[in-house]
Amino acid sequence: MKGLVFVGLNKIEIQERPKPLIVEPTDAIIRLAKTTICGSDLHILKGHVPRVPFGRIMGHEGLGTVDAVGASVTRFKPGDRVIISTMTKCGRCEFCAQGMYSHCADGGWTLGNTVDGTQAEYTRVRHADGSLYLAPSGVDEDALVMASCMLPTGMECGVLSGHVQPGCRVAIVGAGPIGLSALMSAQLYSPSVIIMLDLDPARLEAGRRLGATHAVLSGPHAVEEVMRITDGKGVDTAIEAVGSPPTFELCQELIGVGGTIANIGIHGGKVDLHMDKLWDRNITVTTRQVDNGSTADLMELIARGQIDAGALATHYFRFDEIQEAYACFSNAAANKALKVIVDFEGTGGAAARL
Amino acid sequence: MKGLVFVGLNKIEIQERPKPLIVEPTDAIIRLAKTTICGSDLHILKGHVPRVPFGRIMGHEGLGTVDAVGASVTRFKPGDRVIISTMTKCGRCEFCAQGMYSHCADGGWTLGNTVDGTQAEYTRVRHADGSLYLAPSGVDEDALVMASCMLPTGMECGVLSGHVQPGCRVAIVGAGPIGLSALMSAQLYSPSVIIMLDLDPARLEAGRRLGATHAVLSGPHAVEEVMRITDGKGVDTAIEAVGSPPTFELCQELIGVGGTIANIGIHGGKVDLHMDKLWDRNITVTTRQVDNGSTADLMELIARGQIDAGALATHYFRFDEIQEAYACFSNAAANKALKVIVDFEGTGGAAARL
Amino acid sequence: MKGLVFVGLNKIEIQERPKPLIVEPTDAIIRLAKTTICGSDLHILKGHVPRVPFGRIMGHEGLGTVDAVGASVTRFKPGDRVIISTMTKCGRCEFCAQGMYSHCADGGWTLGNTVDGTQAEYTRVRHADGSLYLAPSGVDEDALVMASCMLPTGMECGVLSGHVQPGCRVAIVGAGPIGLSALMSAQLYSPSVIIMLDLDPARLEAGRRLGATHAVLSGPHAVEEVMRITDGKGVDTAIEAVGSPPTFELCQELIGVGGTIANIGIHGGKVDLHMDKLWDRNITVTTRQVDNGSTADLMELIARGQIDAGALATHYFRFDEIQEAYACFSNAAANKALKVIVDFEGTGGAAARL
Amino acid sequence: MKGLVFVGLNKIEIQERPKPLIVEPTDAIIRLAKTTICGSDLHILKGHVPRVPFGRIMGHEGLGTVDAVGASVTRFKPGDRVIISTMTKCGRCEFCAQGMYSHCADGGWTLGNTVDGTQAEYTRVRHADGSLYLAPSGVDEDALVMASCMLPTGMECGVLSGHVQPGCRVAIVGAGPIGLSALMSAQLYSPSVIIMLDLDPARLEAGRRLGATHAVLSGPHAVEEVMRITDGKGVDTAIEAVGSPPTFELCQELIGVGGTIANIGIHGGKVDLHMDKLWDRNITVTTRQVDNGSTADLMELIARGQIDAGALATHYFRFDEIQEAYACFSNAAANKALKVIVDFEGTGGAAARL
Repeated sequence: MKGLVFVGLNKIEIQERPKPLIVEPTDAIIRLAKTTICGSDLHILKGHVPRVPFGRIMGHEGLGTVDAVGASVTRFKPGDRVIISTMTKCGRCEFCAQGMYSHCADGGWTLGNTVDGTQAEYTRVRHADGSLYLAPSGVDEDALVMASCMLPTGMECGVLSGHVQPGCRVAIVGAGPIGLSALMSAQLYSPSVIIMLDLDPARLEAGRRLGATHAVLSGPHAVEEVMRITDGKGVDTAIEAVGSPPTFELCQELIGVGGTIANIGIHGGKVDLHMDKLWDRNITVTTRQVDNGSTADLMELIARGQIDAGALATHYFRFDEIQEAYACFSNAAANKALKVIVDFEGTGGAAARL
Repeated sequence: MKGLVFVGLNKIEIQERPKPLIVEPTDAIIRLAKTTICGSDLHILKGHVPRVPFGRIMGHEGLGTVDAVGASVTRFKPGDRVIISTMTKCGRCEFCAQGMYSHCADGGWTLGNTVDGTQAEYTRVRHADGSLYLAPSGVDEDALVMASCMLPTGMECGVLSGHVQPGCRVAIVGAGPIGLSALMSAQLYSPSVIIMLDLDPARLEAGRRLGATHAVLSGPHAVEEVMRITDGKGVDTAIEAVGSPPTFELCQELIGVGGTIANIGIHGGKVDLHMDKLWDRNITVTTRQVDNGSTADLMELIARGQIDAGALATHYFRFDEIQEAYACFSNAAANKALKVIVDFEGTGGAAARL
Repeated sequence: MKGLVFVGLNKIEIQERPKPLIVEPTDAIIRLAKTTICGSDLHILKGHVPRVPFGRIMGHEGLGTVDAVGASVTRFKPGDRVIISTMTKCGRCEFCAQGMYSHCADGGWTLGNTVDGTQAEYTRVRHADGSLYLAPSGVDEDALVMASCMLPTGMECGVLSGHVQPGCRVAIVGAGPIGLSALMSAQLYSPSVIIMLDLDPARLEAGRRLGATHAVLSGPHAVEEVMRITDGKGVDTAIEAVGSPPTFELCQELIGVGGTIANIGIHGGKVDLHMDKLWDRNITVTTRQVDNGSTADLMELIARGQIDAGALATHYFRFDEIQEAYACFSNAAANKALKVIVDFEGTGGAAARL
Repeated sequence: MKGLVFVGLNKIEIQERPKPLIVEPTDAIIRLAKTTICGSDLHILKGHVPRVPFGRIMGHEGLGTVDAVGASVTRFKPGDRVIISTMTKCGRCEFCAQGMYSHCADGGWTLGNTVDGTQAEYTRVRHADGSLYLAPSGVDEDALVMASCMLPTGMECGVLSGHVQPGCRVAIVGAGPIGLSALMSAQLYSPSVIIMLDLDPARLEAGRRLGATHAVLSGPHAVEEVMRITDGKGVDTAIEAVGSPPTFELCQELIGVGGTIANIGIHGGKVDLHMDKLWDRNITVTTRQVDNGSTADLMELIARGQIDAGALATHYFRFDEIQEAYACFSNAAANKALKVIVDFEGTGGAAARL
């Protein structure tokens, strides 16, 4: 079979590889139909995730068809159409018992990281019963594949950790795919104000189109503008969807008394936390890796048309064009790209658009 | 009447002042029986709280007798023995509705700060109905005065914000009065491990006596020792009870996956937050000023003997000796002091010990 | 001034009464602009609320203009346009500290009950600072008056107590005004399924129009139909919006494992609770009187167009026609009435429709 | 091997049976060291749990040594000393994801119910990785076996569902083993008042010994007495630890505004719920089957001496005397019995007491 392999820093190529086989009785083999590219894939290419060795098949997002299952898999059978969870979940360790599947003692984020991933014709999913979701039929699969990683990341790390509630005020710093996922999932809780902040007017425009009540260009007047919108109170929830010292700084300037800064961004170093200004303001700061605990509910909401996840897909490629897909996504702002869909089957909704 | 006045940097003196009068119909005048000194009083003396002007009567903790009440005070009458809450609570603003009395739009921390305080023979308490608590009779008043500020601070900013739960592992960094208050209130939730950390062996010994399961000397081996105690997992809750960059740093090294760093310490500057190590560890950091929402329950538990708050009182002074009390508390480690009791009446349990 | 007085069982009349005066320093006098009629007003007329004496001015909902304030009212001044909360909130008792304003030791539900109410040209509101809300300008006042009682009742007693969450399944038993209020506020949390149940097809149609995903006619096949919609699982939240043994029974038949039955209905007697079927199903049953803790957020959402509360207003009357309004509302099903608006001013949005 | 078999209504006998074998790769075979008898075993004997067929080996509590494990069991190996959870947990179904292991789609309460149980020399535990707990060494095993079912039942169905918190007031109706388990686990949260109610003075005495602050004889003056203790407010949490209409009735009379009635008792029929009195009192009623989510923490607390679970063991039998153990436990009040320990090994702490 063919898989996209991380062969060196900033270097990937499609290689011929043996089709994966069932190893443990809890395994399933999935034939991929669609995959996509995550910001963390770009971090891997740059060498920021040192545990990923050269030779690894990339990718942790995907939707496909069950090809084979191990002896103790009971919830799925060959032929089932499934969404692959970013997080492999054993369901029996201390962390799984707390719903923290991202830290599963025998799983967590392993696909395209410590084991071969989903940017390949076939992939092996360990602990399949806990790590796959049955795809509802008749639903746009370009939308469903967003439930692998991106939408639950916005929902869990941004909206749930950030305690977004009806009538509250939210700021989302960063209007890339992850910030827009947070925007989509924030709306499930009906805040009265959602302010997107970004340096790129085109991304702000996307934010506005997808439901932000306000869009503010990052820069010297951003804080002042947010304070004006919030009657000087600041926001109840600031979602950091970039992962850099200045955006984390901005969140601290926007946050109101009693508010929560929910970090989603992947950081490469330390940030300043202004405890002299924050110690008495009843502030909460959260970090979190997606656990995929919300995936089932998000799929249900996509299926019922309550989240237009498909709107995040802006570009379409066949699997043999996946290096172009990476090129496009690496230059997302210039290409006005949000998420790119990589299609293995050349059928269905996406195909029509290819 | 006499009051202790902040007359200049590091300079306080007892002065004759007019006895305070009822100004608003919600006021009460309290004749003090006991007060104590808080770490934040020392910050004020050093000029760290710039909004406190010279000429201000110090203090925000106290227990006394109601001398007079305004026309719309309904819950208290002259002669009632009461505990004064650090936080003045109007009960009708947006923040009070959220239980965040520390940010009350017409109150919060004002005593000994923006209005004259409790280190005086009489003090005026605004919004008296929401800001006083009836002292249960027959209970050691040296213990009850700890419910003004110190115990609720440990409980709310440390234990409640830190989500301490039965069977969990807690570290408390700093074994001064505030760390020991956190220790006492943490035990209300029956964690299985409570580790005190401090540079001073005498304070660690106090921690052990008051219920810590382990005591660890701060220093190069502290992290290793905590990891040994917690089977390499780190703690579920790390309570920062100092307010300095190195102690905040230590908390980040001790915290386990999914844990909470609950900050109590008053910080004079920024700290480093190691987001590169924490972004994917599902960590929560909280800041908080005490709200006194737990004061009523803590008083009940003191009254029933379930918290030995009196054990925090190590030194006793009459009000005319209050400058000695400050001297003693400013050198707490050398004097093996935790909290000092300042007595206006020279009667009761404390009197016997004076 | 004129007020609608409860003069005998099922008997009300407009009488001339002295205009109320400031009695306590925390009082405000409000000149009413709009009021409406609540289901509990009908219970009072029938003598079901024995503490309401003959001679009482009816009503606890209203919107108007501040006419006068007592000496310690600081948040409102004459001329302010305000919404009156059903619940009078002192802000300083044990219950207010828990957000349970409905049980305020010096307030709670008193208007049109233990003191004269809002179906009059003027009314006295005690503890005005905590019991009034500033009406946002430029917003349909027929919608805003729903924030007095009805919308917060649906939100708090139904949706919040019922733990409605994104992606969950909700059933609302009873599609009268209170059930429809629950329907509107449930949508703030984006459940995937909301099933309305009622005996009246017209009310079910209103439910469908206001956002229900399914409508089921109460009767022998209702349970079967709900089970079909929920894949045999039952609902996560069943909201009882009637207050009768058979509707409470129905909720027990619809509820899924781990679900919550949130009761809003006012009951006149006991109901059967089938503990032999429920003891091991991890069910929660809640009762609650509205506390108005959500009123400020609901007003904000109405103002921003996120709740179309005005859609609940179906009939309009001038105050001198209020007995016709009662007649209309008492026969709500026959008149296809939801809420009736009673207008004192004959101006504004409602006036145009009169 | 030998097992205690349910051979007919009220009829059990020890029979020779084939030793169970590994069937699924997730199975483990446990050689029992200790078991005990649960109130629900008595219900089974009387035919109240119709799904239990004649021929079934009884029992769902136990502690023993792993004899063999299936191919996909990774957390346990032969020779490990383990506690068996009442609830079999697959860790991958919708209910397990919510922590509701009692309703696991491929497990839940099956031992001694739908599959052979733990009152036998060997038992097969399905989904072993999620359903066993490693017993800490050096800890009294008579205490540890209480973590199989009884203590977590008191903790989860009583204390957690009942929202017991520091300083609150708790009533426990029924001072049998399950009520006493609730009493022990309630103390982990430091309520200020815990009132035990029972008809049997000896059981009340046990309650007092195990930490109740008050003991009240059930009868005509019980409500009055509880109201006197609680200053007329009633309790915040009423735990129903019997399962009968009159005890459920009593809970409704004791509960204060805003309180929770947490049902543990197994009911054979419906009860009256007095909605006319409760609809406006902000009451919560919960039902729950134990999920064993608290088992790991409880074991840790037993190991550290923070729960004296061994104090619940009053009588000791060898396995060949298990019918006497049933006779003793069936007449618990007359025999002053709480829990009976059935020992297979005749060694250890219990043996010394036999």
